[in-house]
Amino acid sequence: MKKISLLGATGSIGIQTLDIIRNQSDDFELVACSAGKNIEELYKIILEFEPKLVSVAGKEEADKLMNLKIPANTKVLYGEEGLIEVAVHHESTILVNAVVGSVGLVPTMKAIQNRKTIALANKETLVTAGHIVMAEAEKYGVSILPVDSEHSAIFQCLNGENQKEIHKLVITASGGSFRDKTREQLKNVTVEDALNHPNWSMGAKITIDSATMMNKGLEVIEAHWLFDMPYEKIEVIQHRESVIHSMVEFDDGSVMAQLGTPDMRVPIAYALNYPSRKPIHQHKPLDLIQFGKLHFQEMDFNRFKCLAYSYHAGKVGGSLPTVLNAANEEAVSAFLQKKISFLQIENLIENALEKHECISKPSLEEIRIIDEQTRQFVSSQIK
Amino acid sequence: MKKISLLGATGSIGIQTLDIIRNQSDDFELVACSAGKNIEELYKIILEFEPKLVSVAGKEEADKLMNLKIPANTKVLYGEEGLIEVAVHHESTILVNAVVGSVGLVPTMKAIQNRKTIALANKETLVTAGHIVMAEAEKYGVSILPVDSEHSAIFQCLNGENQKEIHKLVITASGGSFRDKTREQLKNVTVEDALNHPNWSMGAKITIDSATMMNKGLEVIEAHWLFDMPYEKIEVIQHRESVIHSMVEFDDGSVMAQLGTPDMRVPIAYALNYPSRKPIHQHKPLDLIQFGKLHFQEMDFNRFKCLAYSYHAGKVGGSLPTVLNAANEEAVSAFLQKKISFLQIENLIENALEKHECISKPSLEEIRIIDEQTRQFVSSQIK
Repeated sequence: MKKISLLGATGSIGIQTLDIIRNQSDDFELVACSAGKNIEELYKIILEFEPKLVSVAGKEEADKLMNLKIPANTKVLYGEEGLIEVAVHHESTILVNAVVGSVGLVPTMKAIQNRKTIALANKETLVTAGHIVMAEAEKYGVSILPVDSEHSAIFQCLNGENQKEIHKLVITASGGSFRDKTREQLKNVTVEDALNHPNWSMGAKITIDSATMMNKGLEVIEAHWLFDMPYEKIEVIQHRESVIHSMVEFDDGSVMAQLGTPDMRVPIAYALNYPSRKPIHQHKPLDLIQFGKLHFQEMDFNRFKCLAYSYHAGKVGGSLPTVLNAANEEAVSAFLQKKISFLQIENLIENALEKHECISKPSLEEIRIIDEQTRQFVSSQIK
Repeated sequence: MKKISLLGATGSIGIQTLDIIRNQSDDFELVACSAGKNIEELYKIILEFEPKLVSVAGKEEADKLMNLKIPANTKVLYGEEGLIEVAVHHESTILVNAVVGSVGLVPTMKAIQNRKTIALANKETLVTAGHIVMAEAEKYGVSILPVDSEHSAIFQCLNGENQKEIHKLVITASGGSFRDKTREQLKNVTVEDALNHPNWSMGAKITIDSATMMNKGLEVIEAHWLFDMPYEKIEVIQHRESVIHSMVEFDDGSVMAQLGTPDMRVPIAYALNYPSRKPIHQHKPLDLIQFGKLHFQEMDFNRFKCLAYSYHAGKVGGSLPTVLNAANEEAVSAFLQKKISFLQIENLIENALEKHECISKPSLEEIRIIDEQTRQFVSSQIK
């Protein structure tokens, strides 16, 4: 029985993690979890899973929850302190970090220091502080298991292989909602258009990131840290069907790939069950004959500027990926609130990157400050 | 330095094995090899690699070779005794078995008993005597490493995985030279048409087997033995481009695949270097963007009768796969000699299978007799 802490229980990855815990109840138990403001959903989770600790966004949400009939032995906390308590709960051995945004960083560090295995769905943890997080994980002998489909695919391709014999990583990109549009056509796309992803059902922010290709850019930076791989050895290839989730080419020319239907529960379950594989409830198996064809094409860095920005920020390193990420979060938020157009997301990120004076090895505190400063800068550009 | 015995040095796999030994000369040394009647080619091999022992088809070929200027310390033998001496040479640690046909069986058994690692390209060894060979390999703690591309792909997909978590094996088939022809159109195809394989450059017998799909059928039976897999869990899928060399679907729905350009040196080098991977001289890396599309379609068992016969022979087991294989060898030989038409290959195999009274666990001696009887029966049907 593995005991699990889950950050971001009411989000897309959180809900699917709970589905795995529910259907493999002989293997897993939820001991602690967090949610933001969705108290209604969290209440259902508490009644079903009876975690010993929950944390919510703030005092207001905590009070709201306390007014509902929750089990007497479920402790309620809030804020960053609450997130950290969930992450380091003494009973848990695995932290599933499925919060969106840079709020996931400090709890992950604390969990590592408490020797929890990290199942990581939060991109920002590695994007902004990869140098700190990976060093800490090595120091404490902690495994960072990727939860998103691309890194899980690479991780699976590396099973039983020698990391030194990797020639390159090949990350696949569906192309997102606007893959068939020219830059000219992107000028007037709406939020609703952008949220209509062709293959995957995901949260709003990540769906927009998928349309701008920033999602793939962040994955490139994550892959750099997770697999200790120089950017020159990380390639992105467009693959419409998202059937091949990613690949690794080895020194002998062999390419290993992991394939499957788009079901985020597969990488989640892989991280939770690692190194075993268990059947997944109501999973639709891959049917290549039904697909008939799989397509591959080159990524156009002029078409997808966020991908170019990401490689640039990753290669420069230091505090620049923090700026990339914070600027993107603010810009996407503004786009979702219909304050800016789709292409302005790129402009805002580019401006923020250009303005920033890079620090080579930022501390957690410096990352926090740069993140905040970047958000203020982007906000000021919007108003 | 790994020392290698090579059966079938002048055949297609043999020549490519020598290319790996030549270009990884710090890692490998050829200590013994066999050839059939191609003395001219063997002579060149002797001058280049200076093996300590060579074996040829018969006394006539041995005499011919002795009349050439070969190094004084190269011993020359012939016949089955010679093949066995090459297979068990006291210096070698690996036997590469790349002979075509059932002649590869006894030397493999002897090599196993002498605790040589077996790099197996000879299909008939497992097809006719899988029950004996695998039991012997287990008894002596010997690894059987597959050399053909499909089984090597599956073997690579199983790296670091738990065999018990396999849901199914998926073997890919290019479809061979006649994949786009109807059965009606197959009536008048010629030997020259059949030898024109779309993807792979291989020997004549295996190219015909690829056109009849018997090649894939034999691979299914081999996979059954190599990976201890019931036939219900072995699927064949048509994949024109031969880019995905084969796949494994696991219990969690994940599919692992091995991809590459069609270069037999990759699986050969993988078996020789196992568990390492080393760069291969002048290997053309896979370029999925250049392919653009990969195609997948269902195998038609009515169109490719030899595949249906193979599943049938495999499932019945016992001596029936020996009949399948021997009948096929005779029929293909007759087709290559233009004694029969392409579709008669199938008829001859079907007749042989129908006539045979199956023995459940044939001994090596019984396999030899049944092989011989089947060949005589098929010959009698032709004349």
